[in-house]
Amino acid sequence: MNVLLVFAHPEPSSLSASLRDVAVRELQDQGHEVRVSDLYADRWKAQVDRDDFPALGPAERLKVPAASRDAHAGGTLTADVRAEQEKLLWADAVILQFPLWWFTMPAILKGWVERVYARGFAYGVGEHSDRRWGDRYGEGLLAGKRAMLVVTAGGWEEHYSARGINGPIEDLLFPINHGILFYPGFEVLPPFVAYQADRLDDAGFERVAAGLRERMRTLATTPPIPYRRQNDGDYLIPAMTLRPGLGGPTAAGFALHRKDGPAEG
Amino acid sequence: MNVLLVFAHPEPSSLSASLRDVAVRELQDQGHEVRVSDLYADRWKAQVDRDDFPALGPAERLKVPAASRDAHAGGTLTADVRAEQEKLLWADAVILQFPLWWFTMPAILKGWVERVYARGFAYGVGEHSDRRWGDRYGEGLLAGKRAMLVVTAGGWEEHYSARGINGPIEDLLFPINHGILFYPGFEVLPPFVAYQADRLDDAGFERVAAGLRERMRTLATTPPIPYRRQNDGDYLIPAMTLRPGLGGPTAAGFALHRKDGPAEG
Repeated sequence: MNVLLVFAHPEPSSLSASLRDVAVRELQDQGHEVRVSDLYADRWKAQVDRDDFPALGPAERLKVPAASRDAHAGGTLTADVRAEQEKLLWADAVILQFPLWWFTMPAILKGWVERVYARGFAYGVGEHSDRRWGDRYGEGLLAGKRAMLVVTAGGWEEHYSARGINGPIEDLLFPINHGILFYPGFEVLPPFVAYQADRLDDAGFERVAAGLRERMRTLATTPPIPYRRQNDGDYLIPAMTLRPGLGGPTAAGFALHRKDGPAEG
Repeated sequence: MNVLLVFAHPEPSSLSASLRDVAVRELQDQGHEVRVSDLYADRWKAQVDRDDFPALGPAERLKVPAASRDAHAGGTLTADVRAEQEKLLWADAVILQFPLWWFTMPAILKGWVERVYARGFAYGVGEHSDRRWGDRYGEGLLAGKRAMLVVTAGGWEEHYSARGINGPIEDLLFPINHGILFYPGFEVLPPFVAYQADRLDDAGFERVAAGLRERMRTLATTPPIPYRRQNDGDYLIPAMTLRPGLGGPTAAGFALHRKDGPAEG
């Protein structure tokens, strides 16, 4: 497979960077071709703004979705953004690796999403009708590819458990897994999360590295999170609410959007 | 009151900017003193990196929490970060206003959090013992202040409802409301969210503006979201899991961390 690893940590000698190298080496040992986008090393521009749309007239009001659509369709997105889009199209699997900062991805990686996910590329694709609400949530330009998160967290695993104070890790990552990866079509694998990452001794590092190697070996075969596809009949259109009777009559929350979520009502 | 409004939209003539002006005017009409941090206009540096810690030696490995603690304690954080910290200390209420991009805040605002929330300022505060796990989640340097989100979303309100495909808006915003605002001590008010914000006609704008004015008039009196305070006895220490019997025996998810969440078990 072709694997793109997007990496977001500012320190080349960090634990995160060591884990990135572990992952890359294991993937290569398995015969995969690997490309790495190292956002800090590449001095990636972290925010979307007017400079992303050089074809926009100086007197024109910036509406990001419209400017993004026009620049993508007209081939006037900046070279750094187009290079990342090409890598996404090249890849069979995409890994986003980052430290969990304030319970989500670092700003620089969020800015990668905002800039690379152009309209017509990652959203605003497909027809809207009484049977379809665009190609999204399981369909889209990146359908057929796999994606997964590799996350390092400073806190304890229990603090991110079902009843942990930070909230369950799967819910904290839902806006990324479902809203950023499943949205443009990726099949999303369960994340790999290393906890107390600031405090790992050599044995702890080796334990984490072994787990990560195993996940890299099974990248092509690990079953994805069974999110419900938008246009397969589970949602009312255009309300885009889960049909009555699916996911339990009274349940709410992110788990509703998994086929293996709360019991049927 | 002193009110700080942190604003993150790149277009000065955007709907978001108009709503910001509506909020500022109403707050001033109520006699409040208002300061605005306009991140795009101020060319705010969007990512945390080595340049944020000028006292760090060139050969030293960058560990963000340690570098942040040392720079905060030693007064060597950069001037732009210190200015924002001073505004936070000055404020009685803080408003974060942003468009919902990919189901969370824009990168530039996330980078504001990463840079301004230094260790010793917004985290890593207070004692750790068998009764306390630091001053966080309801305690901390920003305790006694109020905070709220003002969010514009392109999608439909139903798509963000309890059974909507995007996930419930209160769950999407939990990592911000609970993890970024409640964490360092803010009392967090329910968010103000304007939907289909790209498509508002004049009447639609006036309706949204009226709702926002009302929220600004009640900024000092709106009851906060009743999140559970970490050190008030609801959580086991050090596991930091909600005590058995609280929040329902089998329930999980973010709502557990509200005192008015799932029924007691």
